[in-house]
Amino acid sequence: MILEAFTLKIKTEQILKFEENFLKASEIINKSKGYIKHELQACKEIKNQYLLMIYWETYENHMVDFRNSEGFKEWRALLQDFYDELPTVLHYDRVVYP
Amino acid sequence: MILEAFTLKIKTEQILKFEENFLKASEIINKSKGYIKHELQACKEIKNQYLLMIYWETYENHMVDFRNSEGFKEWRALLQDFYDELPTVLHYDRVVYP
Repeated sequence: MILEAFTLKIKTEQILKFEENFLKASEIINKSKGYIKHELQACKEIKNQYLLMIYWETYENHMVDFRNSEGFKEWRALLQDFYDELPTVLHYDRVVYP
Repeated sequence: MILEAFTLKIKTEQILKFEENFLKASEIINKSKGYIKHELQACKEIKNQYLLMIYWETYENHMVDFRNSEGFKEWRALLQDFYDELPTVLHYDRVVYP
C-alpha cells in the first residue's frame, strides 16, 4: 500500500464549487485500478487549504495506471482551475506507525 | 473528530534514531484524552521527510489536554532534537470526502 498525499491551495472565492467538483472527481478515482480509499480534509487555520490523501495498492497504480487513464483527464479537468498554486504531489511508501 | 497533520523534516543522519524514538512517543500519545489514532508515513521522494496524522475527538483534546500534559513534555523531549526544521502543525476539522 502506498499513500499519495498533498496540500491543495484553492482560489478562495471558488471553494464551494471546488468541493462540488471534488465529489464528482471522487467518483472517477473510486473506480481506478489499485485504488483503496481517499480522504479530503479542510483546514481549520487556513480556510482555502485542504489535505488530500489517496491510498493505492502500488506506486504504479497511481503514476502509470491512473495518470495514463481517461479518468485522469476528467479528474484534472474537474479540479485544475481551482488551484491557487500547483500542488506538490508526494508519495509515502513506508509506515513507521502503526 | 479532528485531524492534526504536519510534515516532519528530520536530520538525515538521525532517521533511524528518530523512528526508534517515535515508537516510544507513540505509546505516550496513545494514552492521551480524546486520542483516536495516528499514522506516521515515510516519504518515497524525500528520504528525510515524513507525514504525521493524528486524529482527535476534539481540537481541545490536542491543544488543551495534550499540550498541557506531562505526556506532551515527554513527547517533545523524545522528538524535538531530530527536526531539521520546526514543523508547522495544522488541523483539519471538516471532511469533504468520504
